[in-house]
Amino acid sequence: MLLKISTEEIKERQTKYHSRLSDNKLDASILFSTTDIFYLTNFMFRPSERPIAFFTDSNYETHLFVPALEKTHAEEYATVDHVHSYPEYPGTEHPMNILKKVLSESGFNNLSVGLDTTGYSSAKGYTGPKITDLMDFKNVESIKGLVEKIRYIKSSNEIELIKESARWGNLAHTLLVEYTKAGKREMEIEGRATYEATQAMFKTLGQGYKPYGNPAHAFYRGQIGPHSAFPHSQNQNALIEKGFNVVSQAACDVWGYKSELERTMFVAEASDKQEKYYNHMYIAQEIAFDNIKPGIAASEIEKEVQRYFIDNGLSENIKHHTGHNMGLLNHEAPFFDLGDHTILEKGMVFSVEPGIYIEGLGAFRNSDTIVVTDKGMEMITYYPRDFESLII
Amino acid sequence: MLLKISTEEIKERQTKYHSRLSDNKLDASILFSTTDIFYLTNFMFRPSERPIAFFTDSNYETHLFVPALEKTHAEEYATVDHVHSYPEYPGTEHPMNILKKVLSESGFNNLSVGLDTTGYSSAKGYTGPKITDLMDFKNVESIKGLVEKIRYIKSSNEIELIKESARWGNLAHTLLVEYTKAGKREMEIEGRATYEATQAMFKTLGQGYKPYGNPAHAFYRGQIGPHSAFPHSQNQNALIEKGFNVVSQAACDVWGYKSELERTMFVAEASDKQEKYYNHMYIAQEIAFDNIKPGIAASEIEKEVQRYFIDNGLSENIKHHTGHNMGLLNHEAPFFDLGDHTILEKGMVFSVEPGIYIEGLGAFRNSDTIVVTDKGMEMITYYPRDFESLII
Repeated sequence: MLLKISTEEIKERQTKYHSRLSDNKLDASILFSTTDIFYLTNFMFRPSERPIAFFTDSNYETHLFVPALEKTHAEEYATVDHVHSYPEYPGTEHPMNILKKVLSESGFNNLSVGLDTTGYSSAKGYTGPKITDLMDFKNVESIKGLVEKIRYIKSSNEIELIKESARWGNLAHTLLVEYTKAGKREMEIEGRATYEATQAMFKTLGQGYKPYGNPAHAFYRGQIGPHSAFPHSQNQNALIEKGFNVVSQAACDVWGYKSELERTMFVAEASDKQEKYYNHMYIAQEIAFDNIKPGIAASEIEKEVQRYFIDNGLSENIKHHTGHNMGLLNHEAPFFDLGDHTILEKGMVFSVEPGIYIEGLGAFRNSDTIVVTDKGMEMITYYPRDFESLII
Repeated sequence: MLLKISTEEIKERQTKYHSRLSDNKLDASILFSTTDIFYLTNFMFRPSERPIAFFTDSNYETHLFVPALEKTHAEEYATVDHVHSYPEYPGTEHPMNILKKVLSESGFNNLSVGLDTTGYSSAKGYTGPKITDLMDFKNVESIKGLVEKIRYIKSSNEIELIKESARWGNLAHTLLVEYTKAGKREMEIEGRATYEATQAMFKTLGQGYKPYGNPAHAFYRGQIGPHSAFPHSQNQNALIEKGFNVVSQAACDVWGYKSELERTMFVAEASDKQEKYYNHMYIAQEIAFDNIKPGIAASEIEKEVQRYFIDNGLSENIKHHTGHNMGLLNHEAPFFDLGDHTILEKGMVFSVEPGIYIEGLGAFRNSDTIVVTDKGMEMITYYPRDFESLII
């Protein structure tokens, strides 16, 4: 069982990247996005005040530019031809001036260069000049989104990692449900479920497993009782009460890859009103599942779901679109959204999570992870969705 | 015990912000930084594809612009005069076009406007136009860093929250040490310490405690044995062995505020070589402590520390500067760095963490959190630092 992205696959990604640069008549490129850099080099960087950059030169050789404290790490783990480093940020010489020298030595002044952004950015105390103000490139073009679009379509190995993520998310979720009882508080339930699922995961998978993120976890994020009507809530350490709606979230990073599992559940009992809204949400999700297939626009899925909500007088109770792509980040483009006309392709991985929000009662939202297949889609998450199973 | 930032303190921050705008002869302002927005409004937002913005109009009234799914949340929790919302991103109308209308209604076209950046940015699938391309402001100025600089100096209440963070970080760290034994693996030790510290924390503090981040946690992040020479490593679920250096990290969010505690420890026994490097690091940290006081440049602290390392032939073993400010983010400017000449002021909170890295042996780094006082500094973290206590 290969619980990682192989060096060979990283190199295939680089080849694909080079070919897109070539299609765009670009001699060279510079990327500052840490997610795209991880994708292309297998170098996982914790963003801080210290800038990093990835670049490809006119021979399409690959380079990483990192702070001194990451140099040995990059040399050992990154799949690149060259590693350059600078002493420190801010340092006596700004890292962007050092990058300028490194780029100049690689002949960048006479090249057509693609850039994702004009410089590194981080909320953690970094400020610096634009690389375009320091260099005199022959020509500059934005390639923002180029790697992101390559990332839209997952390889069979990436899909395996996402499936592995879903398995352990399912364990964390199952434990979360087991410990959820009226009279208990949020943190105790989710802390225990997360701890036990994580331990089981490491003991099962052994040293082959690298999270590059968070191991198996499950939580409620404050979505307990009427407060669950706030869709992206914060932990409240809320008290579970009989008859409450609770909305869970379970996931797990496997080599940086994510899945998403969410369930609306009812503590000990559910009212007719809760059952009614649950069923509407369930049907809306089924409508999405039935429509997902290659060749259709992402917006079409959203249209079908919204039509159902409108027909059933629920349009005022909707607060967000039906789903998002995911992979190395928990939310990525494209989206099941009226404004996103991306054509679905085999290998895209999405959340499907239409939601209904009722003030005073709470949220009704399940989220499942699916992958687009040759003719339709395949479910990746598999926790029960039928109403009876969700009275806990 | 007030474990929160009061509405009154939020309003004082806004008054200070307005006064800086006025100093800069700005009629109005727009901010996209989610950290600065939380600081100024108490609105905690999980960044996603959906943009948010905070703005102040010509009457210095405060506005939040949020996605529909955050509207009720913002109305209930944010300290602002007005909440505006847009249906969804990407949506049938781009949120920035809707923001344009909202700003135009507030008369922004005839104003001198300060902006932190020209638009929202997020790695999670967002793309959009610059607000400066959509609007026709009378005048635009960058106010990037303006709120960050207000955040440099902590109020007495912010310092209390950071001290509370340090207390629970200390518990998590104590448990981490208790469970660290040769033959155990990283994840089991840190999972158990984190779980138990978190439970104790919630049970002790009750409903007054809101993390706005991660509750008490302690981990090794792969810094175990020779691998600890990679300073910002990833979890390896490494096996603890007798005689290993291990480098811990413990922290805790309290209303979003952080502290930092790290210790270099030795499993069961330490060699003379380990003791020698530990002592050098210990002395370097003492040198920093002795020099920190208001009125001195941050770079002076780094100079004194580096002089000690150079005098002792260790300059090749240094990989990073001595420390960083912290608060709502774990790393913030200013830095104890040769290139940072910010003058220290009472109320600034820093990590002090000079490190020595020896290939094949590992890392020697303690990190403590301190606050600059009237005449010097006060330690906020208090886990023992003497060599004998760290043979565990």
